[in-house]
Amino acid sequence: MNIKSITSKKNPLIKELSLLNKSASLRYEKGVYIAEGARLVSDAALSGIEIEMLFFTKTAENKYFSYINQVLNKAKEVYIIEDFIAETLSATKNSQGVFALCKIKENKKGIEGKTVILENIQDPTNMGTVLRTAEALGINTIILSGECCDIYSPKVLRASMGAVFRANIQYLKTPTEVKTALIKEKYSIYGSVPLNTAEKITAIEFNNKSAVAIGNEGDGLSEEFKNICDSLITIPMLGRAESLNAAAAASIIMWEMTR
Amino acid sequence: MNIKSITSKKNPLIKELSLLNKSASLRYEKGVYIAEGARLVSDAALSGIEIEMLFFTKTAENKYFSYINQVLNKAKEVYIIEDFIAETLSATKNSQGVFALCKIKENKKGIEGKTVILENIQDPTNMGTVLRTAEALGINTIILSGECCDIYSPKVLRASMGAVFRANIQYLKTPTEVKTALIKEKYSIYGSVPLNTAEKITAIEFNNKSAVAIGNEGDGLSEEFKNICDSLITIPMLGRAESLNAAAAASIIMWEMTR
Repeated sequence: MNIKSITSKKNPLIKELSLLNKSASLRYEKGVYIAEGARLVSDAALSGIEIEMLFFTKTAENKYFSYINQVLNKAKEVYIIEDFIAETLSATKNSQGVFALCKIKENKKGIEGKTVILENIQDPTNMGTVLRTAEALGINTIILSGECCDIYSPKVLRASMGAVFRANIQYLKTPTEVKTALIKEKYSIYGSVPLNTAEKITAIEFNNKSAVAIGNEGDGLSEEFKNICDSLITIPMLGRAESLNAAAAASIIMWEMTR
Repeated sequence: MNIKSITSKKNPLIKELSLLNKSASLRYEKGVYIAEGARLVSDAALSGIEIEMLFFTKTAENKYFSYINQVLNKAKEVYIIEDFIAETLSATKNSQGVFALCKIKENKKGIEGKTVILENIQDPTNMGTVLRTAEALGINTIILSGECCDIYSPKVLRASMGAVFRANIQYLKTPTEVKTALIKEKYSIYGSVPLNTAEKITAIEFNNKSAVAIGNEGDGLSEEFKNICDSLITIPMLGRAESLNAAAAASIIMWEMTR
């Protein structure tokens, strides 16, 4: 293993990489993103993500050797970096000093099994939490529709605890595209809304051809999306009318889909 | 209504208030905290929280008059403040310019109905989300045990969407205190753990004398706490072993308690 050193902040590679955390369009242009943290980086490698480059500090090498060791022979290039370079690359306050430049994977899978559709989910922590919860509950296919936040941002990666690496993410921009793809696979589409008049989620028998849509944090599902749903469903609430936050509602819905 | 103006940042009142968002101990020493945002402030007033002082900018007065109007006659003192003073008081990047100095309420209620126990919940957003979800699902009594984050911090207030104002919060520091209080009221105590060997939450008939404990984000319930539980329960998962995050697990558990 040929391990190189980077000691200057002005190194053009570091300069370029430090922009990746800030720009989703740059990530897609280059086809790569940065995973940060010993556990997340080893998780990426163990999940079959291609690791273009691995970076770690001397301190991290000692502290997180068991994690780093799992990535060393999978990374195409390996760099030892100085602490101040780790700070440049880091999206957090207290960096562990371990980073991987990961390749965005091509997803060749189709829509499979119980499916969650997220429309216009904007908050990276919500997005990450939903992906993490979906994985824990055994839901693999996630359709992203409308204007969702990018799943390769540092916050989504962190909140997802690596679920991003393994989820079967399908991008279907418009409600019509979602409808067309799901009809083809004989799915029923349920739209979740905070409305007492909708069908209670407890009354529905979800099966492997069920897809449930969850809308934006503030606005819920768009009217256009509601129109393509076979039925609208709701979480019956005893308490005040204010609805649950998006991640909490998604957790309850995914639980009800799989319990 | 006598409305006063504050135009100087050096105003000793503003100096003191700006410290409240940063120090939980100061909040308890003075018996007050700051609620920020037009909706949260009006929610506090409508929930019967005593408003010692109300502050708003000229811009906010126009923009959020319907909210501010609901508080004007309930606040003991009212101040118009300059924009730069709003920035000093604010805990967010984009302040709406509306603040209330709220009195910490004395809680004279006992433990009532289905109850959630939070042990060592440290993350303010998790704490706020749990309080919000509990309220939406009709759970009012929340026992805080061990070292939980303060419920009057800006982040908890915001994430709770005002549920902090209405929850029946009980402070019982040690597992023994929790046990004693709950035995007295003939409760069963369930401890949630990420263990396949624990009883499945789907197999339990929760009733109005059920209390479920949720532990710290990273470490779960303490051993000492597990020992006082009548039984340990778990969310059965199909997916990978990594457990759900604390707020997602709490959402599913509270839903199962009340569905």
